[in-house]
Amino acid sequence: MVIVLEKGIAEENLQNVIDHLEKFGFAVHKSVGAEHTVLGAIGVKPGFDIRQLKILKGVREVYRITEPFKLASRTFKSQNTEIKINDIVIGGTEVVVMAGPCSVESEDQVFRIAKTVSESGARILRGGAFKPRTSPYAFQGLGEKGLEILRKAGDKFNLLVITEVMETSQIQMVAEYADILQVGARNMQNYYLLKELGKIDKPVMIKRGMAASIEEWLMSAEYILSGGKSNVMLCERGIRTFETYTRNTFDLSAIPVVHQISHLPVIADPSHATGLRDKVIPMARAAVAAGADGLMIEVHDDPDNALSDGPQALLPDQFNDLMNQIKNIAQVIGRKI
Amino acid sequence: MVIVLEKGIAEENLQNVIDHLEKFGFAVHKSVGAEHTVLGAIGVKPGFDIRQLKILKGVREVYRITEPFKLASRTFKSQNTEIKINDIVIGGTEVVVMAGPCSVESEDQVFRIAKTVSESGARILRGGAFKPRTSPYAFQGLGEKGLEILRKAGDKFNLLVITEVMETSQIQMVAEYADILQVGARNMQNYYLLKELGKIDKPVMIKRGMAASIEEWLMSAEYILSGGKSNVMLCERGIRTFETYTRNTFDLSAIPVVHQISHLPVIADPSHATGLRDKVIPMARAAVAAGADGLMIEVHDDPDNALSDGPQALLPDQFNDLMNQIKNIAQVIGRKI
Amino acid sequence: MVIVLEKGIAEENLQNVIDHLEKFGFAVHKSVGAEHTVLGAIGVKPGFDIRQLKILKGVREVYRITEPFKLASRTFKSQNTEIKINDIVIGGTEVVVMAGPCSVESEDQVFRIAKTVSESGARILRGGAFKPRTSPYAFQGLGEKGLEILRKAGDKFNLLVITEVMETSQIQMVAEYADILQVGARNMQNYYLLKELGKIDKPVMIKRGMAASIEEWLMSAEYILSGGKSNVMLCERGIRTFETYTRNTFDLSAIPVVHQISHLPVIADPSHATGLRDKVIPMARAAVAAGADGLMIEVHDDPDNALSDGPQALLPDQFNDLMNQIKNIAQVIGRKI
Amino acid sequence: MVIVLEKGIAEENLQNVIDHLEKFGFAVHKSVGAEHTVLGAIGVKPGFDIRQLKILKGVREVYRITEPFKLASRTFKSQNTEIKINDIVIGGTEVVVMAGPCSVESEDQVFRIAKTVSESGARILRGGAFKPRTSPYAFQGLGEKGLEILRKAGDKFNLLVITEVMETSQIQMVAEYADILQVGARNMQNYYLLKELGKIDKPVMIKRGMAASIEEWLMSAEYILSGGKSNVMLCERGIRTFETYTRNTFDLSAIPVVHQISHLPVIADPSHATGLRDKVIPMARAAVAAGADGLMIEVHDDPDNALSDGPQALLPDQFNDLMNQIKNIAQVIGRKI
Repeated sequence: MVIVLEKGIAEENLQNVIDHLEKFGFAVHKSVGAEHTVLGAIGVKPGFDIRQLKILKGVREVYRITEPFKLASRTFKSQNTEIKINDIVIGGTEVVVMAGPCSVESEDQVFRIAKTVSESGARILRGGAFKPRTSPYAFQGLGEKGLEILRKAGDKFNLLVITEVMETSQIQMVAEYADILQVGARNMQNYYLLKELGKIDKPVMIKRGMAASIEEWLMSAEYILSGGKSNVMLCERGIRTFETYTRNTFDLSAIPVVHQISHLPVIADPSHATGLRDKVIPMARAAVAAGADGLMIEVHDDPDNALSDGPQALLPDQFNDLMNQIKNIAQVIGRKI
Repeated sequence: MVIVLEKGIAEENLQNVIDHLEKFGFAVHKSVGAEHTVLGAIGVKPGFDIRQLKILKGVREVYRITEPFKLASRTFKSQNTEIKINDIVIGGTEVVVMAGPCSVESEDQVFRIAKTVSESGARILRGGAFKPRTSPYAFQGLGEKGLEILRKAGDKFNLLVITEVMETSQIQMVAEYADILQVGARNMQNYYLLKELGKIDKPVMIKRGMAASIEEWLMSAEYILSGGKSNVMLCERGIRTFETYTRNTFDLSAIPVVHQISHLPVIADPSHATGLRDKVIPMARAAVAAGADGLMIEVHDDPDNALSDGPQALLPDQFNDLMNQIKNIAQVIGRKI
Repeated sequence: MVIVLEKGIAEENLQNVIDHLEKFGFAVHKSVGAEHTVLGAIGVKPGFDIRQLKILKGVREVYRITEPFKLASRTFKSQNTEIKINDIVIGGTEVVVMAGPCSVESEDQVFRIAKTVSESGARILRGGAFKPRTSPYAFQGLGEKGLEILRKAGDKFNLLVITEVMETSQIQMVAEYADILQVGARNMQNYYLLKELGKIDKPVMIKRGMAASIEEWLMSAEYILSGGKSNVMLCERGIRTFETYTRNTFDLSAIPVVHQISHLPVIADPSHATGLRDKVIPMARAAVAAGADGLMIEVHDDPDNALSDGPQALLPDQFNDLMNQIKNIAQVIGRKI
Repeated sequence: MVIVLEKGIAEENLQNVIDHLEKFGFAVHKSVGAEHTVLGAIGVKPGFDIRQLKILKGVREVYRITEPFKLASRTFKSQNTEIKINDIVIGGTEVVVMAGPCSVESEDQVFRIAKTVSESGARILRGGAFKPRTSPYAFQGLGEKGLEILRKAGDKFNLLVITEVMETSQIQMVAEYADILQVGARNMQNYYLLKELGKIDKPVMIKRGMAASIEEWLMSAEYILSGGKSNVMLCERGIRTFETYTRNTFDLSAIPVVHQISHLPVIADPSHATGLRDKVIPMARAAVAAGADGLMIEVHDDPDNALSDGPQALLPDQFNDLMNQIKNIAQVIGRKI
């Protein structure tokens, strides 16, 4: 941490800043420059609130040099994290495609869709059994019945299963059925949930909150990693901005940014990012071109009658065409699908 | 709901739209204009996703005329909701001030601060026993011990107690000690928590999420109200924008907007909105002038050593001066403190 | 336009709304539904402010059915606009690459860079002679001398020239040297400039303002088109959001959105969108995959000594590698570079 | 400026950073800490782009300690700037109210409104003769005829006149008629206009751009101040965020922030910030309570027929009531109206 002091700071104020730093447990190194005196403070704890120093008299600016996260950073671990589940590796050369309906509606529906996405090359089946809905009056999901259906469909069509967990009380149940547990955007800063997820073995995917900075997103990963777990992946699904034409603004630049500062895999979800079926296709291609380690895509064979998010679901044929396009794009950048 | 059809829509497409509407349970009314045919659909359910219609062939635009929330709307209940607890009324003529430390740190600390804010005219004691922290390494709160301290201090200094509940598993415990339960900004769309809170008697205050529109904020209130409960209040605490000088952007216009479209009381929290002690004072004054039904303010008598958010806490003397100013401002608009 | 009236609106208020509509020049069509009376108003002028109706007594909501722009809309012109300059077509099958330094610094510099980008396959030379700078103390550009250099370099290396015009007084001069005139993001709503640009023959490219909605961006195009000109193209260069890791947030979804609602070509500028050299490469690939009609990329052979924006300029070798990658990606979606 | 180097930076890279700094004209001071070597660089020019250093090998972070603006900063001038025009002082104890119609429509209209706002206590007449309109088809203002009307009305009712200038070519004309020249939000970064305004004697008010940070807003003031002029004031009018209920989000916290870091007066414009008549009143009160040095308010006696922005104009009676309220609020904080 670097603390820049005001020009001509009074000796007692300078001493007060140093005393505070030492009380907070820092080793302090003073450097007197021609214009400003600068203090270096070593040993900053990840949770330290730098405003504690900013309000001291005579302090001009405080800069945290190190990121607030540690285990999630590339400084801590320079090699990419590869998450292996059966024969699938997430974060390796393959761009892994997760596909399926928004909500699990019935066994029939899930089996039909699982079959088609599997034939098109998807490796993981997605589907919601517990649904976070803005409205209390909207369909809230089938619960455990939905989990059972997903598991059966996954087993039949050789697909892994990813699904959302919304509450600590659901973790055990969801972990029994799913291969990957998903934390939704609205729960990205539900710290109790994150901490409990740090205690289970199964991989976790954290969706980025609608107003979450990349740093905060990695801090949420840090919550899970600090429980001793390493198989965490992230998912960009759009952030909220002033532009309302699309449901959210798909922040694809976050993909190369996360790859630079963290070792964790990043998945992209163009379905939630755009909210509009015909925008999903170009943005899925763009995500692969930008370097995403995977895609999460909603597919439905009868979207007009879907119980949630039908308008953003691809039809099976569209999904199949998309798979062909992204296979070729992946190849251009030395990856495969 | 109004559905505007494309100019020259084919008869079969028009019929398809009507069929869908009827299947969704709407009564349909057709009006053929000179340029566009317009369908009126009556009986829209609050959770209906209008994109279900937008994707049908021949549909140009769909407008939901009614708000997506119902119980929270002024259309449903034209009188202001007044929440009475002991001799205090929230949502009436009085502007109710909630004050106290960010976190409960010790009995001594809470008693000292409770005494001073009570003497300055605060009616409700605030303080966190369970703390949502961005970093897993930061102080997470005293838990039930903290709740006990708050209750004792509230009783001694004749203050009501408000504190945050972070998980459904904590609701019973928090409700035993506190007079008002607070839902934090990060939990505004934690729907399980909201639903469970709809089942208890005690009043609930919902902080606005950092990226939540006013409509979504009211939808979260609707979750609680739909459980049969009526004593819900809202709290504006700043939204996330591109401006980073202040911690958040304090959206004071939300106060008159909520008062227009809803009957629920609105509290303002300038401490979290600005994050900077010397900005809290002018913004607290502004909130009262804008019509807030209450203020929530962090006060600490030793902020340099506070375990959280010290930099945004007012000193007791500053708080006392502020109370004098806002008493006069309240009077100007026909209210009192 | 559709005007939804309050339930049980008084007859005199209804009449007042109708009178207003007729005074504003609308033909009015009334439809009495079971719940709401709805008025259809035909002949809305593009500049009409619908709040004029919203404030009338008894009006619940007003919806503008038609877009506020006309000449820029696909409804008005269903075929893609193709801008032909010499042997180059912008908006056709080819993805056209514009490359060059941020600022024109010297003849030597521009010639060196023009040579290398031309050899790598760029078709248009970019470079700023007039520079909009946040700071009055920063390098402001070489002016006409810079234009001369660009023209000479373009002619020598068989490249078209695009450069920014900042003021109406510069239009004639810039039009003498350049093949395409660029309106910068900060000038997107400089309406005098737009109107004057509507009077010249040369094509114009409008960069999206940092806070401009897609609709406002198209309205700026409408300003130029309404002068009788048709050769206008747009350029997405990132919008301002809460995320500060990248300079701006590259809104790639805007590309398919504009292609749907407008017939104008869309270029993408990953250099300004990200502001960071190593993010330019993946985001340029993503833009092509998303369907951009062209790219604008900053290239510098000595970026450490560039007079502006060196940190976001690609090195010539990086640019050459990128060109090879995007040639292949273009092919995947049936285009070429 | 502080440059933090990577742990274990190679000697040649360190030397390269120092060489660059010296080439850029900095005096360099090296401090070797236990963890990081830190360079202090003295003599940073206001326009220096710190990314020039960030991209050098071995550099971890670069912090600009000084603000990028100088003449606008309180460090440069600690006393508040007071702008005296006739008997009015802007930036002193008085909260100065500017009121009038959005657009000048006719002599009659302006005289009627000028009379009423003057009687209610306004000191400055506002009104647009040149109007920046999103749509090319909307009313664009009366031009010089409008300026004449404003001057005559101002003289008759003892009001100063403020009006917008949109182009460098209009400056001389507008300066002949108006007492204060206004730069609109869309022109905040029209640097040619700002530079030319630095050359005239009359005071200038700069509206904050919709996506402008407080720092950029002050940089725009710096453009004018660097021309040798000192009578500049700022105007907060709302920023663009995801919340669309109000036209913009009124960032009232910007008022105390600007007062802390700059010596320039800050005016608040609740009419453009909210866009809705009944929200203007509470937000005008809030602005005074937050410490604004003045208000700019739209008033119209026949808003249904206003040629622009009628829906956000106060009626004369509403304005009069508001004046009474804010007189009392001003008193509470030791100011007067």
